[in-house]
Amino acid sequence: MTYRPRPISGFPEHLPEIRMVEQSMLDRIRATFESYGFAPIETPSVEELEVLLAKGETDKEIYTIERLQADETTGSEARLGLHYDLTVPFARYVAQHFSELVFPFKRYQMQRVWRGERPQAGRFREFLQCDIDVIGVDNLALTFDAELAAVAMQALKAIGIADVTLHLSNRKILQGYLTGMGCKDLVGAVRWLDKAEKVQPAELVRGLIPCFPGPTSEVAANLAVVFSRHISSGTAFIEHVRESGVQNALLEEGVLELKQVIEELGHLGIDDVVANLSIARGFDYYTGTVYEGRFADQPDLTVVAGGRYDDLAGAFINKKLPGVGLSIGFSRLFYKLLQTNKIETGRKSPTDILVVLPSAERRAMALSTAQTLRARGFRVETYHAPQKLARQLSYAEKKGIPFVWFPPFEDGNPHEIKNMETGAQTQTDPETWQSDAG
Amino acid sequence: MTYRPRPISGFPEHLPEIRMVEQSMLDRIRATFESYGFAPIETPSVEELEVLLAKGETDKEIYTIERLQADETTGSEARLGLHYDLTVPFARYVAQHFSELVFPFKRYQMQRVWRGERPQAGRFREFLQCDIDVIGVDNLALTFDAELAAVAMQALKAIGIADVTLHLSNRKILQGYLTGMGCKDLVGAVRWLDKAEKVQPAELVRGLIPCFPGPTSEVAANLAVVFSRHISSGTAFIEHVRESGVQNALLEEGVLELKQVIEELGHLGIDDVVANLSIARGFDYYTGTVYEGRFADQPDLTVVAGGRYDDLAGAFINKKLPGVGLSIGFSRLFYKLLQTNKIETGRKSPTDILVVLPSAERRAMALSTAQTLRARGFRVETYHAPQKLARQLSYAEKKGIPFVWFPPFEDGNPHEIKNMETGAQTQTDPETWQSDAG
Repeated sequence: MTYRPRPISGFPEHLPEIRMVEQSMLDRIRATFESYGFAPIETPSVEELEVLLAKGETDKEIYTIERLQADETTGSEARLGLHYDLTVPFARYVAQHFSELVFPFKRYQMQRVWRGERPQAGRFREFLQCDIDVIGVDNLALTFDAELAAVAMQALKAIGIADVTLHLSNRKILQGYLTGMGCKDLVGAVRWLDKAEKVQPAELVRGLIPCFPGPTSEVAANLAVVFSRHISSGTAFIEHVRESGVQNALLEEGVLELKQVIEELGHLGIDDVVANLSIARGFDYYTGTVYEGRFADQPDLTVVAGGRYDDLAGAFINKKLPGVGLSIGFSRLFYKLLQTNKIETGRKSPTDILVVLPSAERRAMALSTAQTLRARGFRVETYHAPQKLARQLSYAEKKGIPFVWFPPFEDGNPHEIKNMETGAQTQTDPETWQSDAG
Repeated sequence: MTYRPRPISGFPEHLPEIRMVEQSMLDRIRATFESYGFAPIETPSVEELEVLLAKGETDKEIYTIERLQADETTGSEARLGLHYDLTVPFARYVAQHFSELVFPFKRYQMQRVWRGERPQAGRFREFLQCDIDVIGVDNLALTFDAELAAVAMQALKAIGIADVTLHLSNRKILQGYLTGMGCKDLVGAVRWLDKAEKVQPAELVRGLIPCFPGPTSEVAANLAVVFSRHISSGTAFIEHVRESGVQNALLEEGVLELKQVIEELGHLGIDDVVANLSIARGFDYYTGTVYEGRFADQPDLTVVAGGRYDDLAGAFINKKLPGVGLSIGFSRLFYKLLQTNKIETGRKSPTDILVVLPSAERRAMALSTAQTLRARGFRVETYHAPQKLARQLSYAEKKGIPFVWFPPFEDGNPHEIKNMETGAQTQTDPETWQSDAG
């Protein structure tokens, strides 16, 4: 009787032909991050529970790790948990290595994170995030808020994704506006506005009324008009806010910041961003610019998220470390591409050329032909046994290897190469052959 | 009062300047694996405990994961553990996806693994392994045994490591020899021979005597001579085995296999391998070729290990899947390089060029200059604030950015670039500039 292996819900894995596409996308994201000078770091998969819970209770489900063969001597050790995002580990990292980093510190981090969710279709328990953050000491220039948005959009473009729009707002606009309107329950109001795009305007208005003193359906209606479903390009959002007539210093600050960010994105040549004043992203963390990247055909699927925060590592050291960061939810995004058949797979192997093995006696020559081609940068396999040619060609075909190389079957004969797509077979030389397939 | 962040014993992390070196090494290892046609896969970080323990008891310490906020509904789920190597997950992967893979299946896998060890200096609890394996159905050509050794050596060469020697043997030699000598306790004898390089010959002989019938100090002495500290290049080992006069069919098979592997390595241009008949690598798993890569100056530090096995996935499906594989213990290797100051670090950022920000008014121009350079493949930062030039240059210096770009401070003036190493500053153009720094 044998154990039948089965997938574990929430822990995806892929066939090589899919993994090759994924890996190439991750390479391109990484190259984009580096093209803006972000430096790579990785942190351990675990943190002390005290670190993971430093911000107080978290709504993220945490996996702890325990030694299966634990004994009593481990009792004194701190309990460890798998990180549920890359922000908390990064905060701990910056605090711990503070004196060895140069600020503004720009880092990217592409790692797996874990959430101890109950198994459920389409819900990941292990997934890959690609994070970028810039951290300053005491203050951080607003220019980075534009840069982050540009990096995210260019990273998406680099992996061929054109149907994600980056929605931008500034938390000061929302908070200033609400304050200017006399709101007595900011948290409650934000919670409703967070749903602005999902509920009907009338329901939104009903939800907002209790957040203000007095009978205030006009206030609520005004709010619904300003913050619900209003998406604009360029700086048209300013007009929209002005029309409402509300005045407040914080609101004004938010408007100017969002304006500058959008203008700078223009200078960077990035124009597929929109102002969307309903973006709130919770209330406990972000204090300025907020980002949300959404697929055009599935706007409730957020694949990019982030924003500006006042203090990254306050829980750890006595420094004020403001920053701006965002996270590309790579696994989610990749899953969506897979679900909608947008992943083009073909080759089951990275091999460019299969070198045929003519006979056992000519193995040395086949092996050295392969080495010559490898030294020139090609990815090469030598067929493992002197089997019938049809069988060797069939191996190349099944793996999607684009070229088959025939070393001379007898001394004095030339090398030949076969293009598996066109079927063309020509004389060639391992020292000089060039792929015309690009 | 703030929590003071501290490192967690056994879970290494690095500063960006170290991580950049590590990442570049991993890229080069990956490129080497692909140059031989190995395809990438990744598996989840966890497996069901049943899978991790499928081979019966393991001497590897396993970390299980538990939901911190667990509730009674999770009781029915299989328990999950972090994988402690990449071989067990790979076996499960091949069994699970058997019908979708093309055989011989060549895969590489570069992932973190975890061991629930007690904290101890120099002992990793999370580390990175780089594995390659080739799996056949029913049988697998011996040529792959040579290929794997070649790939490992080329991967080490690609990351600048010249002082690791690959020690090769074949388990059939050891087993055949012992049988030919009348051994009645193969396991006991192998356990002693495994220590052959660490103990004195006299102690080894004393340990071996009880494994044979009768008073057999001659037998033990003969064994010690053949298997202890005998390291030879080329096929000189054959002579050495023949001299001992023992004859046995399995021994003969092992000698011929090792001979072929070493000869093929010659055809592949790999000669820094040695035959070392004392390599045993336990007794429960490997059945033919065995590999061990060791630093010349620290031979007890094994950084490459692997071998030929009869059946990868027998515990999972009713197929015979022989294979050959090896693992580069990257974290161990990297730690050794760090300890011996062999990691050359300098730059704290991947940035090639820092574009100076002349003034707030000229930000648009600075930003678009940076974009032009990025589009040409350079990694570029634009300084974030119109601060004094000395401050901007100092930022470049602290991060080790090799070039500083001066966009025109007034319209009509030319761009200039400064080489931070030589101090030379010249007129230039963002559309045409080429780095002479290679």
